[in-house]
Amino acid sequence: MSSPVFLAASITTSTLSFDGTSTLTFPALIRLSRKSLDSGSLTSSTTFGVVKPSTSIPWMKMAVSITCMVQAPGKAFLDFRRNETGGSMRVDLNSDLGESFGRYTLGLDEEVMKYITSANVATGWHAGDPIVMRKTVRLAKEKGVAVGAHPGYPDLMGFGRRYMKLTPEEARNYVLYQIGALYAFTRAEGLELQHVKPHGALYNALVKEEELARAVIEGIADFDRNLIFVALSGSKPAQIAEEMGIKVAHEVFADRAYNPDGTLVPRSKPGAVIHDKEEIAERVVSMVKDGGVRAINGEWIELRADTICVHGDNPKAVEIARQVREVLEREGVKVVPMGEFLR
Amino acid sequence: MSSPVFLAASITTSTLSFDGTSTLTFPALIRLSRKSLDSGSLTSSTTFGVVKPSTSIPWMKMAVSITCMVQAPGKAFLDFRRNETGGSMRVDLNSDLGESFGRYTLGLDEEVMKYITSANVATGWHAGDPIVMRKTVRLAKEKGVAVGAHPGYPDLMGFGRRYMKLTPEEARNYVLYQIGALYAFTRAEGLELQHVKPHGALYNALVKEEELARAVIEGIADFDRNLIFVALSGSKPAQIAEEMGIKVAHEVFADRAYNPDGTLVPRSKPGAVIHDKEEIAERVVSMVKDGGVRAINGEWIELRADTICVHGDNPKAVEIARQVREVLEREGVKVVPMGEFLR
Amino acid sequence: MSSPVFLAASITTSTLSFDGTSTLTFPALIRLSRKSLDSGSLTSSTTFGVVKPSTSIPWMKMAVSITCMVQAPGKAFLDFRRNETGGSMRVDLNSDLGESFGRYTLGLDEEVMKYITSANVATGWHAGDPIVMRKTVRLAKEKGVAVGAHPGYPDLMGFGRRYMKLTPEEARNYVLYQIGALYAFTRAEGLELQHVKPHGALYNALVKEEELARAVIEGIADFDRNLIFVALSGSKPAQIAEEMGIKVAHEVFADRAYNPDGTLVPRSKPGAVIHDKEEIAERVVSMVKDGGVRAINGEWIELRADTICVHGDNPKAVEIARQVREVLEREGVKVVPMGEFLR
Amino acid sequence: MSSPVFLAASITTSTLSFDGTSTLTFPALIRLSRKSLDSGSLTSSTTFGVVKPSTSIPWMKMAVSITCMVQAPGKAFLDFRRNETGGSMRVDLNSDLGESFGRYTLGLDEEVMKYITSANVATGWHAGDPIVMRKTVRLAKEKGVAVGAHPGYPDLMGFGRRYMKLTPEEARNYVLYQIGALYAFTRAEGLELQHVKPHGALYNALVKEEELARAVIEGIADFDRNLIFVALSGSKPAQIAEEMGIKVAHEVFADRAYNPDGTLVPRSKPGAVIHDKEEIAERVVSMVKDGGVRAINGEWIELRADTICVHGDNPKAVEIARQVREVLEREGVKVVPMGEFLR
Repeated sequence: MSSPVFLAASITTSTLSFDGTSTLTFPALIRLSRKSLDSGSLTSSTTFGVVKPSTSIPWMKMAVSITCMVQAPGKAFLDFRRNETGGSMRVDLNSDLGESFGRYTLGLDEEVMKYITSANVATGWHAGDPIVMRKTVRLAKEKGVAVGAHPGYPDLMGFGRRYMKLTPEEARNYVLYQIGALYAFTRAEGLELQHVKPHGALYNALVKEEELARAVIEGIADFDRNLIFVALSGSKPAQIAEEMGIKVAHEVFADRAYNPDGTLVPRSKPGAVIHDKEEIAERVVSMVKDGGVRAINGEWIELRADTICVHGDNPKAVEIARQVREVLEREGVKVVPMGEFLR
Repeated sequence: MSSPVFLAASITTSTLSFDGTSTLTFPALIRLSRKSLDSGSLTSSTTFGVVKPSTSIPWMKMAVSITCMVQAPGKAFLDFRRNETGGSMRVDLNSDLGESFGRYTLGLDEEVMKYITSANVATGWHAGDPIVMRKTVRLAKEKGVAVGAHPGYPDLMGFGRRYMKLTPEEARNYVLYQIGALYAFTRAEGLELQHVKPHGALYNALVKEEELARAVIEGIADFDRNLIFVALSGSKPAQIAEEMGIKVAHEVFADRAYNPDGTLVPRSKPGAVIHDKEEIAERVVSMVKDGGVRAINGEWIELRADTICVHGDNPKAVEIARQVREVLEREGVKVVPMGEFLR
Repeated sequence: MSSPVFLAASITTSTLSFDGTSTLTFPALIRLSRKSLDSGSLTSSTTFGVVKPSTSIPWMKMAVSITCMVQAPGKAFLDFRRNETGGSMRVDLNSDLGESFGRYTLGLDEEVMKYITSANVATGWHAGDPIVMRKTVRLAKEKGVAVGAHPGYPDLMGFGRRYMKLTPEEARNYVLYQIGALYAFTRAEGLELQHVKPHGALYNALVKEEELARAVIEGIADFDRNLIFVALSGSKPAQIAEEMGIKVAHEVFADRAYNPDGTLVPRSKPGAVIHDKEEIAERVVSMVKDGGVRAINGEWIELRADTICVHGDNPKAVEIARQVREVLEREGVKVVPMGEFLR
Repeated sequence: MSSPVFLAASITTSTLSFDGTSTLTFPALIRLSRKSLDSGSLTSSTTFGVVKPSTSIPWMKMAVSITCMVQAPGKAFLDFRRNETGGSMRVDLNSDLGESFGRYTLGLDEEVMKYITSANVATGWHAGDPIVMRKTVRLAKEKGVAVGAHPGYPDLMGFGRRYMKLTPEEARNYVLYQIGALYAFTRAEGLELQHVKPHGALYNALVKEEELARAVIEGIADFDRNLIFVALSGSKPAQIAEEMGIKVAHEVFADRAYNPDGTLVPRSKPGAVIHDKEEIAERVVSMVKDGGVRAINGEWIELRADTICVHGDNPKAVEIARQVREVLEREGVKVVPMGEFLR
């Protein structure tokens, strides 16, 4: 039986150091992941020599193997972000909005705006038009929701959900065009543009095509290197952006099942979309507080959750968004725009 | 016979004062308009008491009745702009560029860029696409040409040349969208956005629909109140913008005939387009230096010429642009971006 | 006091003759318009007078001034169409369908299909896409609803409701293109293409621009001279088509107010749209059986009603469509596709 | 030394039978392929037992191993098509036309029309518009060129040259829509619609995605089972169409290099496009008369050539088209619309 190990860490915004004997001064931060409760086989790690908190660790996330007070060996994440404000965890809730077009109305924007903190506003290519963009930005302003651009493929008929083979040059400039278009409306309304989240099939293509991802990120950086790039949590595009010095919001999906490799289970597969409200709420808390979630095959996967994607297409989706927010706040998580903790 | 009258003015950038006895210190600035040669009946105006250069005069233009040295009574324009740099007149040459689209190439952009000072870059609705916009902005940067947005109707098939009935709200936001889209490219390339010139049928519609004009100007102001609005010289839209405190570049057309009311003769009418290079050159000089030109019926009309529109569609148009520039410079006119004297 | 006049008519499918003394052999066909009810105490109508039937009357409609038994002068319509099938009146009910686009759903097509006899199917320019077109044509086939093309302006963002200045050549070929596109789906599903009804602002523009109307009708005739052209009842386009030998369905609107000149009161004006179900039902019966309706100013206007436009945008509209059909059938009117009595 | 072998075949349109002793009655039809000249080692095949002309052979093509009169063993193709009209070979020359759009002009349609026999007319999605379609169909009519539809992806900005992931249902209906649209113009001009050739990236995608190919062919069949489907020679889509009972024109490319598997070398690879006029001419003759051509690696590949694709983008391309036609006619090949020998 392993003996309890006390650990300590003194944390500032950018450094972290441990020793194996001190007391942990912010116990709330080290929370056993659900995974650790299952796998009791972790025996070593009585000290924190495992942790080598050099300045070279990725600034956002580091895994530490601990044997905790409760005698159950496990694995947990220490995340600077969670520490910055004295221990309380923060997360952003985002939703795709402004997807109406001309005579066509889509989405319960007004409703879902009540629960989210960041709006991904369609930029007129796969959805949205200037009237809709203005209205959506104005609505976000009223509700105190931060605004980001949601550029997509030039495919209104397919709602940007169909893969198109773009050259890097095309992708870069298509994204740049759409960012500028939306920026005009945030500027007109006196808001800042907070982030950029590629839409639909483009979002998915980035995960598979590295050159494409690089081009899209360059398009974002062309406009403003301070824009936050919203990417699939832990994905290659996220990594590329970080290497390029672009801030990344790692995004998780409240209602989507994950493959063991951290990618989303395609909608065409059974079980891809989770409909049960309780399950969604539990998964979200797991992702935010435990830093991971069960994949579709039951395996535990680690996921950094800076922002959670919720939907506003229909009343049920809005109800889920409402509940996700409520549950997070009940669990002590601060739900704030990503720009507040990522910039 | 009237005796010659000497006049004087001391000019700084923003004020102008005369007295009736001094010597005019910048004779080059007072030039008889061709109109004055016709109407020899002007006999009075022996002093400049006529001129009351208070601060309330429209900042750009004031008419003074003079009896000049050459004993021919007439009317001429004193324009601060011409004075600001010590007497030399300045004008901008603009052209519609970046009108290619995808596989389709239009315009000899590289060629005409050599002669113009401001480029109106299509913004993807009536022409242009993100690749083309990037390329065009880059080219302008290389050539030292200032860049403006050239928003148009959402009508690629009609090249923005067909009237569409837009609501003011639509017009305002359509223009705003397109300005933002182009801005993204100027920002990416480290250029400033200098101006906005509505394209084609939209440009023409503004002259006829006051509410539409106001909406378009509001769209420009929504983005940046320092953008210069390029409008048909002396038109209602120009006046509205000035009243709204938006800077206006009064535009004249090198190769187009004018109606006596200062509007353009529609292309569908005979004589609407002037093809003779010599005639074009002479008209341009008349507009810039004499402040006016003959209308299609022979009447003299006054036109303020801040910027002259030339074309780059074909080799002949480029040759005209080249010659217009050459002739202007030969006549002592400085051809510079409008932003240098209008902002 | 005028003396009663007896009249008679022997009717075959294509001829009608009267004399001033005979008895009318098909009393059901001559019905006093409601207008006549205003002026007088009309009780029976066993005889009629004053019909001057020349061979030059338009084949579809003729007005007869009668003095009826009750000594109250009035005006009524005799319509061959009503006679052809032995006295029962026939009318078509049409609705604009297939207006969804990609991810965007519009209209309760399945619901309204239950009550109409002709579907105007959007052709992908102002609304609709190939998937939607296929589905809509298939649905019409299932429900026994006849199919027509509903071509519009190339303006999805404005839903074809914004006027665009087209040349006749453009209009003709735009309409031809869209007819062909829809025809492909009717052909694939083994249906005939019955009619063509221009959509939205194009429909309205035809009434004002004769050359445009001619061009659109030529576009229809280019495809098939047997297609029925649906036009505003009594309008110039209807007349032009008839002169060109193209069959016309004179269309009336169940829920729209009319100007005294027979044009529709623009939607922007108060009272333009009638919402009261009872009133709509009464107006429809008046238009079909009495050949006219009250204009917005209370004046009686004559309207030929071959087809009545109803809507399917929302549950209330569908309910109106249902009621219009019910009321017409209750009044003995046969509600059948226009192709059954116009071709 | 192998002794000459006589062979015989009695041929009707739909059957073929041989025996090993008879005389070949149509010597022109059996022509040594160039490949056979290289590989002189083929020694056997003294009789035609090799050939088992069962009813199961693909109706268009069969390979026979022969030892021919000239003592050089080889391989040749017997093609019913060549036989049907008594021995003279026939081929079609096709080109993509009508690719202008609005203000944008593309292609020397008038010029290349002089040399081709079938025009693939763009249908407004990746290129073309109704005005252009009308003009192109009219031009084809004047020049006696047969007309086919050239449907593409809904991607004007990418000219249909970018792969898009379509569902089979989308592909089927997109193609159907576009066929109908073009059909309207052929109908208006009194022409028949001869064929359908998918454009650009869609053409290429068919080769790789069997389900997509089937959907596109179904779209064609939905419209008219007598339309000829133009497909990459020997490709899977061609085979699928034949199995579905749809006539196929096997297409070869005059100026493109082939991979050993019969697919085109992608334009991005060196050597993909052949520029030398002489080489192009020689290859075309080889493909038509010898039934094959050298792949990029020097290997001989068999290709059925019903129609040869030439271009009209630029003067050089037109010159190539001219020469291809000239050379083919000089070689005794009849250049006629595919509809003359495939229907």
